[in-house]
Parts: sequence; structure tokens; C-alpha cells
Amino acid sequence: MGEFDLIARYFTRPVRSGGAVALGVGDDCALLAPRPGMHLAVSSDMLVEGRHFFADVDPRTLGHKALAVNLSDLAACGARPLAFTLALALPQADASWLQAFADGLFALADAHDCVLIGGDTTRGPLNLCITVFGEVPAGQALLRSGAQVGDDIWVSGTLGDARLALEALRGRIQLPASALARARQRLEQPTPRVQLGQRLRGIASSALDVSDGLLGDLGHILAASGAGAEIELAKTTELIAASALFTGPEAIFDMELMHQCTLAGGDDYELAFTAAPAQREAVQSAARQADVAVTRIGRITATPGLRLLDAQGQPQPAAYASFDHFA
Amino acid sequence: MGEFDLIARYFTRPVRSGGAVALGVGDDCALLAPRPGMHLAVSSDMLVEGRHFFADVDPRTLGHKALAVNLSDLAACGARPLAFTLALALPQADASWLQAFADGLFALADAHDCVLIGGDTTRGPLNLCITVFGEVPAGQALLRSGAQVGDDIWVSGTLGDARLALEALRGRIQLPASALARARQRLEQPTPRVQLGQRLRGIASSALDVSDGLLGDLGHILAASGAGAEIELAKTTELIAASALFTGPEAIFDMELMHQCTLAGGDDYELAFTAAPAQREAVQSAARQADVAVTRIGRITATPGLRLLDAQGQPQPAAYASFDHFA
Repeated sequence: MGEFDLIARYFTRPVRSGGAVALGVGDDCALLAPRPGMHLAVSSDMLVEGRHFFADVDPRTLGHKALAVNLSDLAACGARPLAFTLALALPQADASWLQAFADGLFALADAHDCVLIGGDTTRGPLNLCITVFGEVPAGQALLRSGAQVGDDIWVSGTLGDARLALEALRGRIQLPASALARARQRLEQPTPRVQLGQRLRGIASSALDVSDGLLGDLGHILAASGAGAEIELAKTTELIAASALFTGPEAIFDMELMHQCTLAGGDDYELAFTAAPAQREAVQSAARQADVAVTRIGRITATPGLRLLDAQGQPQPAAYASFDHFA
Repeated sequence: MGEFDLIARYFTRPVRSGGAVALGVGDDCALLAPRPGMHLAVSSDMLVEGRHFFADVDPRTLGHKALAVNLSDLAACGARPLAFTLALALPQADASWLQAFADGLFALADAHDCVLIGGDTTRGPLNLCITVFGEVPAGQALLRSGAQVGDDIWVSGTLGDARLALEALRGRIQLPASALARARQRLEQPTPRVQLGQRLRGIASSALDVSDGLLGDLGHILAASGAGAEIELAKTTELIAASALFTGPEAIFDMELMHQCTLAGGDDYELAFTAAPAQREAVQSAARQADVAVTRIGRITATPGLRLLDAQGQPQPAAYASFDHFA
């Protein structure tokens, strides 16, 4: 199987004309036709074997995740997905691996009407680079810089399960099989909050996606907005879906681990966002329409820095490092 | 040096407001503001150590080449460069390497007014993935599919020097130092024909950039246009800039090598394009304005396939394989 056969067999599909894609796979460039009044949102993520996924990862879930982490960036700025490019370095062209990878990739792409318009394939250590394109009305993108003092801080879905799965897969903790399966699903097939992001336009004052860990990522909102924050620990510990594990007869209760997972776990791909208290009903309504839970975990403060508060409102000493590829 | 320091130090520069870039590096997405009536041309290329460049390559020339190969795709469709994203996997964060890489990258980016708007950095085997964005008036992009029977076939600049350098660097042939330096410049710092591509809008009937070898790449135009071609060997052998090497007292005359380099060398990043004979003056004028030579090397035929003709117009048997990462 040559390079062009590979592209034709696994990565070329007919493009509907008349939409945002004027020209798809097969020429020197693809052509996008943005609608008047729209900005084009662009994000690029690179996934490397051994860093972002295990060498023996199921290629179908890898196809899903490679696109999901990019769609999550579109969600964070409130953009509607349009299209993506895929650049792929492969140690060899393995037909069954490629078919499963393409199946996982296109299942998610089709669910979001996001069209593969081009890319590159080469031989090399396994590496996936997707660049995704979305549209957002000019001036309405959710940015990191809009948080205001007094705003609520919200998080979508659950936090920490991906990290819990990672710790288990690395053999550092043990989880019951059913709990591992549930946590692993979150690690390997995260759900980008694409609908929620779009529905939060005009409601949220700032937003980002939680990819490196909640506290570190919230720090980017605080830095960009020139503000501080208080986080209620009692709220964040409830965010781990597998928290039922931490009670009952098979309890592996470990509060430190729970904090590590929820506050600095990484790979969550949930949205963290801020909104004025007057928007609480609107936020809940947007979340219902997007079919995802949202939890209010704290507030933006004038005092710089990020403080964790216990159930009595007392500051807790804590240092949870966010993931950093070069730290 | 952490991941965010690295991005801030080497890859974040102020963005002028009011242009096509509404938001640059630093949020979940960058935002492009396309002008009315414009299509956005998109291309993505991935460069892998050991495949596309040697491990000990000068990082400054690598920064140049990583962007140049992408700008060459924009040139091939007649688009004006606007912006690019850079995803980078690095074995380690080496300050002097990164500074030199960024210098080479931004020197070329600035020359084409092409703004870095985002990307990703991660640890991993050295891999560079750039996605580039340009604008082209709707309906005016140069495509591979527009060649007409009777059209001339043209090539810009020179062909084969990059391959000649590669053969020398691999120790398969010997070149005098001055010739190697000249050929190596073409291999490591190709010049994307950005001006020429834009000036050929409305003149050329089809175009692409020669990256895998002339014959193989021309084959894409023929397949997309449903046509054949005749190529005059006497014209293509003149296209190698280092052809002076092949005569004189230090002659390393090897016609087979010359054909291999010019017809199937790869890494040329010149434009191959077709235009009606009535456009010969317009093509030459566009080339003069873009300050690059163009050579007419053959014509599009109704008979399918690609035929090489000798100086007497007789077909020559020849099979020159184009570069294929998985063949």
C-alpha cells in the first residue's frame, strides 16, 4: 500500500458541496468558504505515542481522541466545528490499524458534521497532528480574558476520572474492573462539550477546556483576566464520577489522590468557565439543552492567586502541579 | 524551561490588529477574520527527523524549510499567505536549538507577512507539523484539475539540485565543495514561489508544487484533468542548476543521474503548471514580475499517460518513481 493509496482508501470521502468546504482532500490546498460575519476558529494539537497514549492503545479510541481534544478547543471558544486536517506519521501502513483508527475518527467527525479536508501522511514514530476549524460569529468567541470579579466559576461534566484510569493502568493504584472500565472510557474517549460551548456564547464571560488539570488551566483564565479565584474543595471532590469507589466496603478512600485527580488530573476535556451570578439560570438552561451537568465550584476575586477553601470556608494549603511536557 | 515558558519565549509575538488575524497565540483557538469574497486555502505538512531532514540539520534552515514547504502549497493554488500554526514534538527543550529554529522560521514568515497564530508543543521524537492559511478570491484558486489538451506545461526555477545534494550527503556521489554548497542550499532552504503562484491566477489552467518529483507530481495533474502529456527531455535536463558540473574537466557526467534528479528528484518546491499557448507572453510576464525563470517543458495531450521525448521527438522508455513514504 503506497502513500496515495493509503490516503485514498482510509482518508478520502466525498465532500458535500455548498457548505463551508469549497474543496476537500486531493489538491495542494483545501478551500474553506467562511460565511459573512463569521470568524474562523483554529486550533492544533499533536499526540505522541508514549506521551499522550500507550503504544498498544485501541486505534479506534485513538482516532476518537485525536479529534476530540481538538473539538474541545473549538467548544471552549464557542465555535461550531466545520472541518479538520490530519497529519499522520506511522511506523508502518497496517491496514487493520488504519481502518480502526479511521472508523473511530470519522464516527466522531460525522457526529459533529466536521469534514476531513486534507493533511499529510509520512513514515515515522507514531504522531498525530490535527488542526481543526470552526466558525463563530465575529466578536462572540469565548475567550480566557473576560472573567470579572464576582463571577461564578463553573465546570462541566466530571473531573479526575481520566487521571484515575491512568494511575490504574500504570499500576500505581488498583480499581475494581467496572470502575476501571468507566474511568478508562473517560481517558480514551473523552466527550468534547461542543454543544455546551456554543450555547454559552453571550452567557459565559470566559472559558477554556480543562486538558492539563483544573487548577493550572484556571490559572490561564486568571492570568488573562487579571483576577484571582476561590475554589470550594467540597464541590470539586464531588466531580469525580468514580467517587462512589471511595466509599463502601471496597473503599480505597484516599483524599489526597482524589484531590490530585480532580484538581490536577489532566485529560478531562471539560469546559471551565465563568459567568455573572445573574446568569445562573441561563447557564443551567444551556447545560440542560446541551445534555451535560454543570457545577458551580467557586468565584472570581479581586485578590490575585487561587485559593482552595474547605467546607468551613477556611483556606487550605495545597499545591497541585498542572501537567507540563517540559517541566 | 517549562512548556508555557517555551511558547512565550520563542513562539509568541505581538499580532497587529486589523488584519486577517483577529486573535493570535494564547487562547484555546486563534481567530481568523477572512475578507468578504475570499476563500481560505489550508494546507498541512509534517516533517519527521530521519525522513525529511537529518538529525544534525542546522535548526535555522529547518525552521525555514518547515514553513517553506507549506507556503509552497499556498503558492501552488495561487493563495496569499496569512497565518500558520506550528505543532512541535521535541526530544528536549534546548534553548540554542529553539532560538535558531525560531529565527529561521520567523525570517521566512516575516518575508511573507505570515503570522504564527497558535499550535502545540510536546515532548517526543522530533516532529514538526505546520498548517498554513492563505486567502484566494473565491473561484480563482489554481487547481490540479484544469489542464486542457494543447496546453503548455511549465516549470519554475530549477529542478534536481535538492536530490543531487541528498545523494552527495548520503555519500553516493561526490560533488566539488562549491557545487555541494549550492545544491545543499536548494535542499535545505527551498524558495516557495509565492509571488509567482498569485500572478498566475487567471493565466495558468492548472498548477501544483513539485515536492515528490516532477513526473509523479505531473501525474496528479493528468489524473485530475483526465489528460496525458509529452515532456521534452532536452528541456528538463537543462533545469538542474548544477548542470555546469556535468561538463568540463571535473565532469561527473551521468545522464541517468541527471534524469533521476530532474524528473524524480523530490524536494524541489517549484511550481509545475499548465497554460494555453495563447498565454505564453502572460506567463513570461508573470515570471518576470515574480523574479523567477520559467521553462516550457512539454504539452498536454488527449492520449493518456506521460511520454518522454528525445531531441528528435522520439519517445524514450523511462520509469522514474516518485517519492512515496510507504511504497
